[in-house]
Amino acid sequence: MKRKACAEVGIRSFDMNLPEEVLESELISKVHELNANPDVHGILVQLPLPKHINEEKVLGEISLEKDVDGFHPLNIGKLAMKGREPLFQPCTPKGCLELLSRSGVSVKGKNAVVVGRSNIVGLPVSLLLLKADATVTIVHSRTPDPERLVREADIVIAAAGQAMMIKGSWIKPGAAVIDVGTNAVDDPTKRSGYRLVGDVDFEAAFRVAGWITPVPGGVGPMTVAMLLRNTLDGAKRVIEE
Amino acid sequence: MKRKACAEVGIRSFDMNLPEEVLESELISKVHELNANPDVHGILVQLPLPKHINEEKVLGEISLEKDVDGFHPLNIGKLAMKGREPLFQPCTPKGCLELLSRSGVSVKGKNAVVVGRSNIVGLPVSLLLLKADATVTIVHSRTPDPERLVREADIVIAAAGQAMMIKGSWIKPGAAVIDVGTNAVDDPTKRSGYRLVGDVDFEAAFRVAGWITPVPGGVGPMTVAMLLRNTLDGAKRVIEE
Repeated sequence: MKRKACAEVGIRSFDMNLPEEVLESELISKVHELNANPDVHGILVQLPLPKHINEEKVLGEISLEKDVDGFHPLNIGKLAMKGREPLFQPCTPKGCLELLSRSGVSVKGKNAVVVGRSNIVGLPVSLLLLKADATVTIVHSRTPDPERLVREADIVIAAAGQAMMIKGSWIKPGAAVIDVGTNAVDDPTKRSGYRLVGDVDFEAAFRVAGWITPVPGGVGPMTVAMLLRNTLDGAKRVIEE
Repeated sequence: MKRKACAEVGIRSFDMNLPEEVLESELISKVHELNANPDVHGILVQLPLPKHINEEKVLGEISLEKDVDGFHPLNIGKLAMKGREPLFQPCTPKGCLELLSRSGVSVKGKNAVVVGRSNIVGLPVSLLLLKADATVTIVHSRTPDPERLVREADIVIAAAGQAMMIKGSWIKPGAAVIDVGTNAVDDPTKRSGYRLVGDVDFEAAFRVAGWITPVPGGVGPMTVAMLLRNTLDGAKRVIEE
């Protein structure tokens, strides 16, 4: 999907497929090669990495100026801190905020509940919502009563990776619901034997929510769009300097 | 207080008093000097800095290994991210968790409400509580109904810098209340004309809370203790390497 989107907007993309048993040092020298290549403005390391490779170490080697995923801890630190701005915001969280803003949902002063606290979505989207002046509650697998908290939310970001854990009855009428989950569930009526569902029971929540994103088709395409935007911004920055 | 505490435990501390009109470049070369000095294991830049100096730039120059305040964005990023650990945790947030743990207050699965979102306290203490498996809500000046949220909290961290904004009636019976605020209020009965109070109405909250820290005398000394601990840890790390 990313490759196709790049082609459509005129960004040249190329894959580096490395064997699963690649050495960490080899992977890191590939990253260094891309860091040094002036034709490259964005580098993605596809996660998860094989177990013998230290993810933290590899991601830390990506040049900050090309970290279009925005996962470098220095980027996350600046995302978290008041008065600081990261070079790149992580794509899915940025896409969630973009969806809210394009739908005319104001964030300031709203109760936002984020379900999930992953480094990729839950944590950074919480930090972005906080910077946008929402009151933010982060709910996770150790939260005994997620339902009580979600019920109070004007904005729900579902990023737990639990198929349909958020029921229609949990949604406050009129709330904005952004479903980041993508879970495969068995479905014998499909040729593949499964279908994709989100973290929200869409059919039921749809009747209550003011806004809701479908799965598939909601957050996914917006994430790709934000990745293209980050890459373009990175390229512009290099050209302007 | 920091100087005295250092002397008591046998840490040598020294001040570098620079004039208010010091050039940013001069301040930065002082930081570099301390970075390079092997006798120095911790560097504090006293904030706030004069307006003509870029705080972000100066703090970013402190060697990560000597950033005992833990304010470097790379440290904050690692504090935020699952599976990552900063070299140093910021002192006041670390002290808050230490107070809870030493009082036998378990954090896991509890509702924690943090009032305030400063880079120094509110934000990092929220991140630490989240890592300790609390369900965390961050309340701030744009939150329309802080009272409703504080009422649900098993753990309240008050770090808004608003004298006695949190009333006794807001506290859930038995909750643990950590008051990070230090505010001067007029008091004609004092020779100085003022006294220090926290962000919590202590007298009233004391009757309801299970645990509560006083101001002054609660979080302040624990912050200093954590600073000493960070400095010691930094020194140990250098010696072990």
